[in-house]
Amino acid sequence: MGSSIGVGLIGLGTVGSGVVRLLRDAPAAMQRRNLDFQLRGVAVADVAKKRGVDIGARLLTADAMEVIDDPDVQLVVELSGAASAKEWIAAALARGKDVVTANKAVLAAHGEELFGLALANGVDLMFEASVAGGIPIIRSLRGGLVANEVESLYGILNGTTNYILTRMTRREGGYSEILADAQEKGFAEPDPTMDVSGMDAAQKLAILCRIAFHTTGTGGDVYCEGIEHVDTLDIEYARELGFTIKLLAIAKRGPCGVQARVHPAMVPSESLLANIHDEFNAIEVVGSSVGTQVFSGRGAGQMPTASAVVADMVELAERKISGAGSAVGDMILDDGAASLADMAELELRYYLRLQVEDRPGVLESITHILAQGDISIASLIQKERDLQGGTVPLIIVTHEARERSMQQAVAAMSALDMVDDDVALIRMEEL
Amino acid sequence: MGSSIGVGLIGLGTVGSGVVRLLRDAPAAMQRRNLDFQLRGVAVADVAKKRGVDIGARLLTADAMEVIDDPDVQLVVELSGAASAKEWIAAALARGKDVVTANKAVLAAHGEELFGLALANGVDLMFEASVAGGIPIIRSLRGGLVANEVESLYGILNGTTNYILTRMTRREGGYSEILADAQEKGFAEPDPTMDVSGMDAAQKLAILCRIAFHTTGTGGDVYCEGIEHVDTLDIEYARELGFTIKLLAIAKRGPCGVQARVHPAMVPSESLLANIHDEFNAIEVVGSSVGTQVFSGRGAGQMPTASAVVADMVELAERKISGAGSAVGDMILDDGAASLADMAELELRYYLRLQVEDRPGVLESITHILAQGDISIASLIQKERDLQGGTVPLIIVTHEARERSMQQAVAAMSALDMVDDDVALIRMEEL
Repeated sequence: MGSSIGVGLIGLGTVGSGVVRLLRDAPAAMQRRNLDFQLRGVAVADVAKKRGVDIGARLLTADAMEVIDDPDVQLVVELSGAASAKEWIAAALARGKDVVTANKAVLAAHGEELFGLALANGVDLMFEASVAGGIPIIRSLRGGLVANEVESLYGILNGTTNYILTRMTRREGGYSEILADAQEKGFAEPDPTMDVSGMDAAQKLAILCRIAFHTTGTGGDVYCEGIEHVDTLDIEYARELGFTIKLLAIAKRGPCGVQARVHPAMVPSESLLANIHDEFNAIEVVGSSVGTQVFSGRGAGQMPTASAVVADMVELAERKISGAGSAVGDMILDDGAASLADMAELELRYYLRLQVEDRPGVLESITHILAQGDISIASLIQKERDLQGGTVPLIIVTHEARERSMQQAVAAMSALDMVDDDVALIRMEEL
Repeated sequence: MGSSIGVGLIGLGTVGSGVVRLLRDAPAAMQRRNLDFQLRGVAVADVAKKRGVDIGARLLTADAMEVIDDPDVQLVVELSGAASAKEWIAAALARGKDVVTANKAVLAAHGEELFGLALANGVDLMFEASVAGGIPIIRSLRGGLVANEVESLYGILNGTTNYILTRMTRREGGYSEILADAQEKGFAEPDPTMDVSGMDAAQKLAILCRIAFHTTGTGGDVYCEGIEHVDTLDIEYARELGFTIKLLAIAKRGPCGVQARVHPAMVPSESLLANIHDEFNAIEVVGSSVGTQVFSGRGAGQMPTASAVVADMVELAERKISGAGSAVGDMILDDGAASLADMAELELRYYLRLQVEDRPGVLESITHILAQGDISIASLIQKERDLQGGTVPLIIVTHEARERSMQQAVAAMSALDMVDDDVALIRMEEL
C-alpha cells in the first residue's frame, strides 16, 4: 500500500469539481486506505473559465488526449459529458489505463466494445456513478449479490420524473405546471426530453441489464414511455385503488427472454418504491438467494455522484496496487447474450381510463372489444357524471393480458364514437 | 483465475447447508468468475445426524480443528454458532487461513482481537452475513461509501421484533399474544430473550459502529431497551401523531462522541423505515457525500444468509488468487478509537404516556416536574375518560431534552399518587 496513483481528469464540471474536493478532503475511511491519488492533469473545454475548485493552472489543458497520453497518468476519470467521451474512454483503455466514468449514454450504447477493449488491454472500466448516483448498486450486483440469479429488477432511476410525479401525487399541480416550476428552480433541464421521455432511465436500465441478466441491448432496445401523458386524474384514481404512479424501469427474466421496459406504472401505495419521494432513486432487486432487496438514495447531484466516482477510484487503486488483473471479465458476454423479449408478447396487468358517453350500450361495446382480445376484467368502476359535461370516466383494471392484444383493444376503443379523447393506459406492477 | 480454493466448513446447520447448495448450484454470476471452491472437510457436532444436503461421509468430522489444520484448506467458513466458535476462528487465522463467519456475537465481543490476528497473519476475516443477512451493508460501508464520513445510521436489524411490532401495528394482537404465535410458527426462538431484549440488534450495531465510526465498543456497551413493554395503546397514539413504532438501532456522531443505542422508537409513518414490514431488515445511512441511503432486505433465513457468506468467499478467493494482501487493515484502530457517548448526556425527543386521575391539579404537578427538569413540552393531549375507570391517558410529546433529566422526571411522575402504573416512554426520531 501507499503507492502513488497518477490521475487524469477529463471534465471539471459539477461532478469533476466534487471529485477534486473529495480527493483533497479525503474522509477518514479513505485516509485509512493509505492511497495517494496524484492529480496529473485536467482537461476542460475552456481553460480560462473560473472554477469552483482551485486547480493549479499548469494542470489544466484543453486537450483531453494530452491527459490520456501523459505517462504519469495510470487512471483516467472521464466526467466530461462531451461528444468525444467515447473516443477518449477508448483511447485511455487502448493505452492500458484504467478508466472511471459516469457517462451512462456512452456505456449504454457502446458497453460491449468498451468492456472488450478493457479486457483486451488488461485494464478496468468502472461506472458506479452512471446509474443511480451514489447508490452502490453496480458493486452490489457484481459483488454482494454474486451468489444470486437476479430474477427481477424494478428501478426508479430518474430523479426529475420522480420529483414531478411526487409533486403531482401531493396535488401540487398538473404535469406541465410542475415541470415548468422544476425548470425554473433548476430541478429539470431547460430541455427535459431525455428525462421526461424515459430515455435517461432506459439507458441506465440497459446498463443494469448487462450486469444482472448479461444482455447486450442498448438504451434504444428498451421499451420506453415517458411521463408526459400522466394525468392527475389517473393519479387520483390510482390512489383510490391503493396504488401510486411511478416511472419504473423494469427488467425481469421470463419465458420470452429478458424483458426491459420503462413506463409509468402503478405500484401498491404501501410498497417501498411508492414511498420513494422527490428526486430520490431506488432499485428493488429480487435475487434467487436473497429474495427482495431495496437500495435507495440520491440518484444525482454533485457529491453523491462524486462519491460513487471516488469509490470506483479507490477500488481500482487497490486492485492496481495488489497486482490484481482486470475485473471486467464478467461484463463481456462470451457465453451468449440473453435476448430482450418483444414487448408485444408480454403479459401484464393494465389500468384503463376512458371518457365515455353516459348512455345504454356503451359498456357492452367496450366489454366486447376486451373479450375479443381475450382480456379479462378484474374490476370496473363507472364514475358519476361530473358537472362539466356529457361524458363519465370509466375505470377498468384487467387481469394479466397480452400487450399486443391490449394495444389493439385500446385502438379499437379509441375509435368508438362514444369514447372521447385518448384512452389512458397505465401498467400495474404488484412488486 | 481458475485456481482451486480448499474450503473447510465448520457447522452444517441451516446456513451451512445453504452455503453447500450455493457452491454446488453456482449461479451464472459465480460461474463467470471461474472460481473452483473445493470442499475439503465439514466439522459437525454429530456426524451421524441426517443432513438436508448430501455431503460425502468421508468429509464429515466431529473435530473442527481437523478441518482447520487440514493443509488443503485455505479458507475456513465458520457457521457453527458453537461456544468454541471464537477459538476456532482464532486458530484458523493464526494458521494463516482466511475466515468467513456469520457469528455476530463473537465479532461484537472479540472483534479487536480477531481482526488484529488476521492482520498479523496477513489474512482476512469477513463477516457480511453477521449483520442484516443478505443485505450487502458491510461491503457498502467499506467500499461503495468509502468517500463518506458516516454521519448517522438507523437500523431495523432484528427480524423477530420487527415481525412482532408489524403485527401489533396491524392490530393483530398484543405483544405476548403475537410473540406466542410467532414462537408456535417458528418465527421466534423458544427463548426469545436475545431478540426481544434488543441484545441481538445491539451486537449487530456494535459491528456496524466499528466500520462506520471506528469505535471499539462491544454489544454490551450499546444502550439497550427491548420491545417487551411496547403497549398497543402507544402504537395507536403513535399512529394518531403520524408515527410508527420500530425497534431501532441508532448510531451517530455527536458532540459527546459516538452514540449507539437500541430501543423502541417512533419514526414518521411516511418514512422508509416505518414501511419496513414483517421480518425485513433495513439500514438507513447518512453519509457526508451521498446523503441518505437506505438498504432493505431479508435479515435472516437460510439462503439470504448463505448468499452473504458466499459473496464473502468469492471476494476472498479473488483477492487470494490475485495475490492481494489482507483487507482488514481498516478494521483495526491504530488511529485511536472513538469513544461511545454516555446515554444520560444525549438530548432526544420523547413521547410519554401517563394514566392520571381525572381531577384538578394533576396537570400542574406533572408540568411542574417537567419544568424542573428543563423539559419543554411540544404537545400535550389529555384523552377522554374511557369506560373502564377513573384514570385518563395523558400524552406528552417533548422538545429535545436531556436523557438524564427525562429519566429523573419519569421517576418523579411515577411516584405521584395521582399517576397510575408505569409511565410509558418512547423516544422519537425524525430520521
